[in-house]
Amino acid sequence: MVLPALADLQQPALAQALQAKLDHKTKPLGSLGRLEALALQLGLVLGTEAPQLEQPQLLVFAGDHGLAARGVSAYPSDVTWQMVENFLAGGACVSVLARQHGMALTVVDCGVAHDFGTAGPPQDADGPLGGQRGHEVPSVGAHSTPRAQLHHAKIAPGTADSLSGPAMTTAQCAQAIANGRALVKSLPGNAVLLGEMGIGNTSAASLLLAHLAQLDIADCTGAGTGLDAAAVQRKTTILRDVLQRHADVTDPLAALAAFGGFEMATMLGAVWQAADERRVVLVDGFITSAVVLVAHAIDARVLQRCVFAHRSGERGHALMLHHLGAQPLLDLGLRLGEGSGAALAWPLLQSACAVLRDMASFASAGVSGKV
Amino acid sequence: MVLPALADLQQPALAQALQAKLDHKTKPLGSLGRLEALALQLGLVLGTEAPQLEQPQLLVFAGDHGLAARGVSAYPSDVTWQMVENFLAGGACVSVLARQHGMALTVVDCGVAHDFGTAGPPQDADGPLGGQRGHEVPSVGAHSTPRAQLHHAKIAPGTADSLSGPAMTTAQCAQAIANGRALVKSLPGNAVLLGEMGIGNTSAASLLLAHLAQLDIADCTGAGTGLDAAAVQRKTTILRDVLQRHADVTDPLAALAAFGGFEMATMLGAVWQAADERRVVLVDGFITSAVVLVAHAIDARVLQRCVFAHRSGERGHALMLHHLGAQPLLDLGLRLGEGSGAALAWPLLQSACAVLRDMASFASAGVSGKV
Repeated sequence: MVLPALADLQQPALAQALQAKLDHKTKPLGSLGRLEALALQLGLVLGTEAPQLEQPQLLVFAGDHGLAARGVSAYPSDVTWQMVENFLAGGACVSVLARQHGMALTVVDCGVAHDFGTAGPPQDADGPLGGQRGHEVPSVGAHSTPRAQLHHAKIAPGTADSLSGPAMTTAQCAQAIANGRALVKSLPGNAVLLGEMGIGNTSAASLLLAHLAQLDIADCTGAGTGLDAAAVQRKTTILRDVLQRHADVTDPLAALAAFGGFEMATMLGAVWQAADERRVVLVDGFITSAVVLVAHAIDARVLQRCVFAHRSGERGHALMLHHLGAQPLLDLGLRLGEGSGAALAWPLLQSACAVLRDMASFASAGVSGKV
Repeated sequence: MVLPALADLQQPALAQALQAKLDHKTKPLGSLGRLEALALQLGLVLGTEAPQLEQPQLLVFAGDHGLAARGVSAYPSDVTWQMVENFLAGGACVSVLARQHGMALTVVDCGVAHDFGTAGPPQDADGPLGGQRGHEVPSVGAHSTPRAQLHHAKIAPGTADSLSGPAMTTAQCAQAIANGRALVKSLPGNAVLLGEMGIGNTSAASLLLAHLAQLDIADCTGAGTGLDAAAVQRKTTILRDVLQRHADVTDPLAALAAFGGFEMATMLGAVWQAADERRVVLVDGFITSAVVLVAHAIDARVLQRCVFAHRSGERGHALMLHHLGAQPLLDLGLRLGEGSGAALAWPLLQSACAVLRDMASFASAGVSGKV
């Protein structure tokens, strides 16, 4: 598999112009703190002094994990497909937040162990990506809402057990990445928000963190959906064995194939395509950050496009952010996934752009400078 | 002056119902972290299991400070009125954020040393509160915008020098509080966002913190709009003298009158009225928190209604929040004031309510529970 090299978005002249623009706004120098760094980054990603976020795409990648059968999660695997239905019906947290922000929500079946069927004629089918199923969202929310779409990009009904062998084959991994790239390519807008659903996928994320950042698996393993201390111990023991099983893996993509899951490989493709197209990538929590960790291991310039929405309450996420040198926007103890943290942080990105575009300068507003 | 006692909003039955509702939503228990506590609080303030925020009022209280003449700020006092004009013209940060959120913005002249006039017939005049001046906001923003209003409630053109005596008389303080109460009473909606503008007002806030929380003034004094280290030293020395000058003050309102300013006294009235009416009060940064500190010293139940938007970069704010036992939502190093932090945090309150109102339960969505 060949992923295109990413362009370096360091643009000294534009960075200087953006900083000067921020510094001349009617506010004490630097007084918008982290929001100013965010505005600068968004300007650099979108290549303009007046960045405007357009048609944000909230993508929830879903897949099942063979390892889940070993009891690494507090919930049964059936919850993956049930939550996909919940996303489509408009009842999940991310559904509610997508409505709040008037944001398009696409749920991607990357490898859920369930047959969702294909409702209606395949009018939305687009070749190898498969068709889409649209659901009208019930009118529980106060806001007008684009309907949530199910996008069919299933590799297989769940990955293999990563304790017995790689979670997926090299070919499956490549196909999932290609699916993710094609999906983003087909979508409008200049920003993607990453979300995921997959019972067992905190295990995959913990494994990737321990493997790629060379950390002790115990420091990388948390309660996931709500394991108690004894169950976290058991989970850690299993993950230590899985890690050992694939200790000879060196390539980041081989690590992804070894540990899973299909939703993470598909997301990696989406991240890469978005990065290649200079879309803003808003990263959610532990699992989506693990995908960015893989991308970072391939080409660190991917981080130039990534905004980290929040520091999750899931053990390991703080370590992962530290490893990536990432400063998240929120720190609210969230540990839900689905893209919920990304959606919660989204208005801050809009604010950063609005400040850059619309605030007056000292000169234009006739406001005095420092004495 | 008599302020009405505030009702106790502890409602064990409602709190239990709200918690049960949150716990049955389709998400792992507690996985929305701080957002769940926020949802619970908003339900308790608004007295419902399905809270809905309506017609939020962003109020920017402006006033000048006699102490500013002693050089406690990096900017001249003229910046206060110039920024008021900037708020009204739509070019300030808070203007941009109010537009982003489609939020009504009222700028209150509580005691700015400038004559803003009264444009047009006084059709909006409402008795002792004075008239209002509406400004059409320029079409720089992408969103439809209610016009910003200037509300006339000037006590005097700036407070007296608090090093020479009280910043305001008891009567002035009482009038300012009455103005703030009448203003909120006249406004629709069930939420207020607090903002302020006043060159010199970080000094007043530092003084109130040191006085009411019995802290060393050096720990309470920061760079404000951007003093260098030497200037912060000089500011601290001046504030220490002011504090000493009013060391015999014991009553919280007398402390407010001693240290100022008019914008803070007017804001206190607004906070009290909002609290009395069970509106949600979204607190911004160092100065607005200082007003809540005064309110808290009078009746700690005011905190039941207060949501703290962020931890400011201004020295002293972390101490103040700690003294109040307050957990802010954001921590972005903001130190602008104007209500900008409150406006940035606002969507999180809307999200918390939406989660409580619109998310499906495990039962309603047919999602399996824990194994």
